[in-house]
Amino acid sequence: MTKLTGENRIVQFLLDRYGIKSPAIRKGIGDDAAVIQPRNADEYMLLTTDMLLEGIDFRQEWTTPRQLGFKSIAVNISDLAAMGARPRFFTVSLAIPSGITERWIREFYSGLTEPNSAKGALLIGGDLSYSKNGIMISITALGESTNRRVLYRSGGRPGDLLYVTGILGKSAAGLNLRETGCIRPRSRSQKEAIRAHHLPEARCEAGKWLAQSGLVHCMMDLSDGISMDLPRMCAASGVSAEIRLDKIPIFPESRMWNCDPLELALHGGEDYELLFAVPKTKRQLLEMNYPSGFTKITPRGEMIRGEGTVWVVESGKRRRRLSELGYDHFRS
Amino acid sequence: MTKLTGENRIVQFLLDRYGIKSPAIRKGIGDDAAVIQPRNADEYMLLTTDMLLEGIDFRQEWTTPRQLGFKSIAVNISDLAAMGARPRFFTVSLAIPSGITERWIREFYSGLTEPNSAKGALLIGGDLSYSKNGIMISITALGESTNRRVLYRSGGRPGDLLYVTGILGKSAAGLNLRETGCIRPRSRSQKEAIRAHHLPEARCEAGKWLAQSGLVHCMMDLSDGISMDLPRMCAASGVSAEIRLDKIPIFPESRMWNCDPLELALHGGEDYELLFAVPKTKRQLLEMNYPSGFTKITPRGEMIRGEGTVWVVESGKRRRRLSELGYDHFRS
Repeated sequence: MTKLTGENRIVQFLLDRYGIKSPAIRKGIGDDAAVIQPRNADEYMLLTTDMLLEGIDFRQEWTTPRQLGFKSIAVNISDLAAMGARPRFFTVSLAIPSGITERWIREFYSGLTEPNSAKGALLIGGDLSYSKNGIMISITALGESTNRRVLYRSGGRPGDLLYVTGILGKSAAGLNLRETGCIRPRSRSQKEAIRAHHLPEARCEAGKWLAQSGLVHCMMDLSDGISMDLPRMCAASGVSAEIRLDKIPIFPESRMWNCDPLELALHGGEDYELLFAVPKTKRQLLEMNYPSGFTKITPRGEMIRGEGTVWVVESGKRRRRLSELGYDHFRS
Repeated sequence: MTKLTGENRIVQFLLDRYGIKSPAIRKGIGDDAAVIQPRNADEYMLLTTDMLLEGIDFRQEWTTPRQLGFKSIAVNISDLAAMGARPRFFTVSLAIPSGITERWIREFYSGLTEPNSAKGALLIGGDLSYSKNGIMISITALGESTNRRVLYRSGGRPGDLLYVTGILGKSAAGLNLRETGCIRPRSRSQKEAIRAHHLPEARCEAGKWLAQSGLVHCMMDLSDGISMDLPRMCAASGVSAEIRLDKIPIFPESRMWNCDPLELALHGGEDYELLFAVPKTKRQLLEMNYPSGFTKITPRGEMIRGEGTVWVVESGKRRRRLSELGYDHFRS
């Protein structure tokens, strides 16, 4: 009896065994969200679920109940944004140890239901339980497609340009501040990093625009770091990728508290930015039409022939394999 | 700052604050499942979520991974059955401590996906996480209405007869065997009780038939014991109820291992039978047409004017209030 060595391996087992078995399932296990087709409905429904555990995903000392609620729903909504869906509804399972006050619960639910966290999704149910071992949160969010246009992780082709929204490594820089005992952020950039860590906002508007544009081959959200997530997109698309280190959108201010911004951008995780691939022929069309109110985008790399490997290109150096150093729950 | 004293109170707070806010929500917080209406779809979608925690809801020593998977999905499917819905899809969030083997996971998922546990619902996604504190399972199940006929907890009226499917207290008798150290059940009735505890089957066929019949005013499933669940149905319907002790369908065999069958039937929980109310004028129609292949039903009590109180009637005695002695996660 072997012990589990990686989350990807379990997901692969589940995919092999419990893959799509019904025409009502457009997408099952293995993407950011499942896509189903209710009978005679105009649109697809998208379903995603994410769990947050005290001591693993958060610490009570570092977060307020409002921040915890905010982040718990935001990470689920991000999965819907990554497929271009409109958030509609969500349910919350919450297990709490004795000692949690009614005020804590009120603030938690208040964070869950803010416009910037839930992005329009309405709370419709859940489950409550007593816990002997810390707080546990499990959320399921439902989204709806627009004109049945949904983007998957698969669909990328060799030659596609790789884009990301926003900046990478900011959330990890905020986590670093917490880990090194920074209780009150002093500078503006420290506040920004802490905010990115506790109050991430799903890129719903950009996700929807990109899905509707017809210019994008595939998309996903960056939750575990580009070094973990890009290989997943490559594997789903049956390609490899090259990323250019000088093009990675880093958060340079984190150098001031002794972080390596590039390291955090590649392996940090929890940025909840969008990663997407666009054919080279559509580059101009994309960059001309992409709304100026959204985060600026430029190509960060491209997809190449191969079998799921991500290469790092640095000027004046030989290309190297980007080892998978992002966060994997099942790696010790 | 007060400590929480009851699950019902938290649910009431959520209901007051996050009640229905959209015409797409037919039913939100506070019933067995939420009921939503996808755009232009023929049918409603129903959504329910339930959490199972090691040390609270189960112990690893007492259950095999297959049994655990079976029960985890069955308790969710039971919520759909209680509204008359057809189970369609489900997602699973699973957090496991190190030391859980790949074989354990395979068997857990095998229990999750059996015909008698999932009742046709297909696994479409989920989340995996490492846990420092035991196994945690959170499942969200989706069902579909038939002809938009859905039964709620509300809708019962004074004079309605109260029915339950099957026998009550069998699962609690099985739990009692486990708690008193019975590793291998000896008699047929012990095996039956253990089976009821570990492998409960949602009453989907009966639930669907009852919803389609047009004879039923309201329905719910019995998960926390009739002494906890009936007051919830009464409160939702704005009535009180009287139950006749001699009519409660008990599991008398549990006397052989020193249980009080009536006590377990009233307060035991985890039977996952259906509780429903039918107007007196429809009694004959119901009992004549109810399929003979389903568990036999006879009236166990009736709804009366009042505000959510459940009274117990025993021949030759004054009626008494049925104190709420079922399982409440938040009562110490």
